[in-house]
Amino acid sequence: MNAGQDRKQIFVQEVAPRDGFQNEPVFIPTDAKIALINALSDTGVATIEATSFTSPKAIPALSDAEAVMRGIRRNPDVCYSALVPNVRGGERALAAGVDEFNLVMSVSETHNLTNLRMSREQSAATLSECVKVAHEAHIKVNLSLSCVFGCPMEGDIDTREAFRWVQRFTDLGVDGITLCDTTGMAYPTQVASVVEQFRTLWPESRLTLHFHNTRGMGLVNVFAAVQMGADRFDAALGGLGGCPYAPGATGNVCTEDTVHMLNLIGYHTGVQLDALLDCSRRLRALVDHELPSQVLKAGKRLTVHPVPRSFEAIRARAAARTAL
Amino acid sequence: MNAGQDRKQIFVQEVAPRDGFQNEPVFIPTDAKIALINALSDTGVATIEATSFTSPKAIPALSDAEAVMRGIRRNPDVCYSALVPNVRGGERALAAGVDEFNLVMSVSETHNLTNLRMSREQSAATLSECVKVAHEAHIKVNLSLSCVFGCPMEGDIDTREAFRWVQRFTDLGVDGITLCDTTGMAYPTQVASVVEQFRTLWPESRLTLHFHNTRGMGLVNVFAAVQMGADRFDAALGGLGGCPYAPGATGNVCTEDTVHMLNLIGYHTGVQLDALLDCSRRLRALVDHELPSQVLKAGKRLTVHPVPRSFEAIRARAAARTAL
Repeated sequence: MNAGQDRKQIFVQEVAPRDGFQNEPVFIPTDAKIALINALSDTGVATIEATSFTSPKAIPALSDAEAVMRGIRRNPDVCYSALVPNVRGGERALAAGVDEFNLVMSVSETHNLTNLRMSREQSAATLSECVKVAHEAHIKVNLSLSCVFGCPMEGDIDTREAFRWVQRFTDLGVDGITLCDTTGMAYPTQVASVVEQFRTLWPESRLTLHFHNTRGMGLVNVFAAVQMGADRFDAALGGLGGCPYAPGATGNVCTEDTVHMLNLIGYHTGVQLDALLDCSRRLRALVDHELPSQVLKAGKRLTVHPVPRSFEAIRARAAARTAL
Repeated sequence: MNAGQDRKQIFVQEVAPRDGFQNEPVFIPTDAKIALINALSDTGVATIEATSFTSPKAIPALSDAEAVMRGIRRNPDVCYSALVPNVRGGERALAAGVDEFNLVMSVSETHNLTNLRMSREQSAATLSECVKVAHEAHIKVNLSLSCVFGCPMEGDIDTREAFRWVQRFTDLGVDGITLCDTTGMAYPTQVASVVEQFRTLWPESRLTLHFHNTRGMGLVNVFAAVQMGADRFDAALGGLGGCPYAPGATGNVCTEDTVHMLNLIGYHTGVQLDALLDCSRRLRALVDHELPSQVLKAGKRLTVHPVPRSFEAIRARAAARTAL
């Protein structure tokens, strides 16, 4: 595979430091977070969602947001984003020097209430203030919409309902929209349809897809999305992640598995897969459980294995049988 | 989703009783194998590869092949196939009443020698005799070709080389050909290309695809294959399986995850997913480890979860904030 300029670019956004670590039962030491983000900064990913400026009481796992943002080495080619839940969080994020706010609300009223303790209207009002804070500070702002492909409590969500929130925040001038499959309910024909509709309605918008592998379809959904022209994906190193409010939910689509597949099917991610696998091994040492990553366990497709030590003897015995 | 006749039929072939159980370190009792196959017979799968008539010394896990075949209840809508490695195995399979022989060789010389202790030419000569045995007995015979999408020791395999073996056995009049991704090296654009070429060269042949999920692309490859018109897949309940001679190899593509996806994207499998999940829970109790199945753990996409018990209080508190 030649990584030529003739290949279409796909942007890979690493979310493990935020969406992954926030669900880890054991606090990852700040120094380890910084070291991992520094290593990820050299892999070629386009964006790293580094932390969350939520209340330290709400998400103790990320209570070191300022220390992480101030401690990391900044690669000028990488956008360092952070989750911002409200104006107070936005002010903290600005002071800590983030490149982009990532705002989150759900298109499911039930999920938004359960997860964020607000109605969607209340979330939209709060996040609109955050958009203003970002604009006044001249930094980028992205809106992530949860449960676009289904809600674990409500079931299917009408795409028109999801798009109503896209329109509302597009009107406010956000720099990008992420459609999130928060609990792994998306399936490839649905993804293809939603991406096609989105690109027709908002051809100039920066669209990101965020998939989980809960029902095994994470990479299928990435494949279906790129077939429809999507070019930007959230993914988590090792497949870390999951939503504590969605029972049975499992990890984000795995960054190294995603890059491995995108390379094979002819896209240019700019990501050095070997460096990414080094990061994943480092992550594995930080958490107290196996990672869902498949390529971490099996190796790259063409990492060939040696023949057994008895191979020549096997071949000789086989040849002798034919000679009889 | 309506399971109407207007949907294209996809045939699901269950291989866990052979390709799965042969790799289990603990012997599954014969009665348990029979009970599982009987339960699988009522799920709507098209074929069950029930066992292997290899030497009991070579594969002790399946040393009860005769007892299994004679013990199961036969659903007339299901084809009960078995792996047949040689004429002696074919005679045993006939005596035990199998519906179809499944013959296996590798398109990689190194893999064939390592796995079967024969050159490919020696395998082809042996299997040609098995085809004759099947034809004389008027039962069906399928050829499964391993490593079509890559060999863990040789790397990429030229598709023309794989197709040379397809042509050779098609000339012998086999009833079907299975292209196997033995160690999970296939990727979706490769799969699409191979399926398209196969269907152009042998439009009348019954083609089966056999994928492993070693690098996370099992379902992506199924999706890419159905997009090119493939309509028959091997899959293993729970995602059981793996090849003992391929380091790092993991399970077959999971039957319930495959059926779950195929149903969602608009195909008719005829398989009752709930009954299949019951079988998978039964399988989980038989083996001493977790199964790779995602749908077994997470549930079907629209199996919605109840809201938290505190939901009405959350909603009331949110509403009170707006009223302030």
